[in-house]
Amino acid sequence: MGRWEPDAAGRFRSAAMELFVEHGYEQTTVADIAERAGLTRRTFFRYFADKREVLFSGSERLQQTMVEALTGAPAQATAIEAVAAALGASAVFFGDNRKFARQRLKVITANADLRERELIKFATLSAALAEALRGRGITEPDASLAGEAGIAVFRVAFVLWVGKSEQRSFGEIVSESLTRLRVLAAIK
Amino acid sequence: MGRWEPDAAGRFRSAAMELFVEHGYEQTTVADIAERAGLTRRTFFRYFADKREVLFSGSERLQQTMVEALTGAPAQATAIEAVAAALGASAVFFGDNRKFARQRLKVITANADLRERELIKFATLSAALAEALRGRGITEPDASLAGEAGIAVFRVAFVLWVGKSEQRSFGEIVSESLTRLRVLAAIK
Repeated sequence: MGRWEPDAAGRFRSAAMELFVEHGYEQTTVADIAERAGLTRRTFFRYFADKREVLFSGSERLQQTMVEALTGAPAQATAIEAVAAALGASAVFFGDNRKFARQRLKVITANADLRERELIKFATLSAALAEALRGRGITEPDASLAGEAGIAVFRVAFVLWVGKSEQRSFGEIVSESLTRLRVLAAIK
Repeated sequence: MGRWEPDAAGRFRSAAMELFVEHGYEQTTVADIAERAGLTRRTFFRYFADKREVLFSGSERLQQTMVEALTGAPAQATAIEAVAAALGASAVFFGDNRKFARQRLKVITANADLRERELIKFATLSAALAEALRGRGITEPDASLAGEAGIAVFRVAFVLWVGKSEQRSFGEIVSESLTRLRVLAAIK
């Protein structure tokens, strides 16, 4: 107890994901996760409130990362360019953690509660982007529309990225997806 | 029992919404709804599986309406034009039921389970639009992007429509919102 463990959060995360994939989310207990990680339950609860948080603790940091990038975009950036900056920051956030993302999506897809939680996370993220756009002087409904469009691109790109045999990075895919949306929406 | 009641579903819906607004969703029972509607519990269950379905039974019909309109759009319509046709059909679907929509949103917003259900409904609707777009020969990721964009516009327009002192019809707002998104997304 109290002992510092190098990258304990990361070890819990890897152990939990292995067990969720092997035995299913419902069947995995915090005790199982701690044992697999070679750490104690007590240490687990210093990092996560419960096993569900192992899957969602990244969401808050992701949101913060995207909001900061949007807020920090050049003053002359349009709403959609600021959203593009947020999407670019999400790509840096994910890096090359495609395997973790793929497993996480599989676990979430298999459980109704987790799917709901994931949808709530996206709705919260969309609202946060819209708020940050309003902070840049973008009025409504433009701020909400651009925020929702950003999430639309994010979601579609994410599914592509974790797809079997996909080789492109999340950054490439999300950038191409935004461009596709802009081409689709173009007024002829 | 078995007796035909003119517009029983509509009477249950109005009675339920009154009670949800007056006493809260959780506190309202099917017996309360039946009593307020002047009908029996037994009749209620011929129309709805439970009280939650009073709030969501329209969602399936809405989805069907939008998918049909998308599928029936002229062959030369682009993906976004086909989505515009679906949004136009949703406006016909809602008609001037703004008061019901406003109350419904209030009830849903106040309850976490209902909010989750509403988010799931939107995700299902987005997937259905994407599938209908693929049926028109639109490939991925364009079909998913256009479907998600349509839902983004729908959600933003809906919140505007039910806003206090809003006078424009849903049809006007949804059409303007789509145009706003297209202007925002325009590649300069």
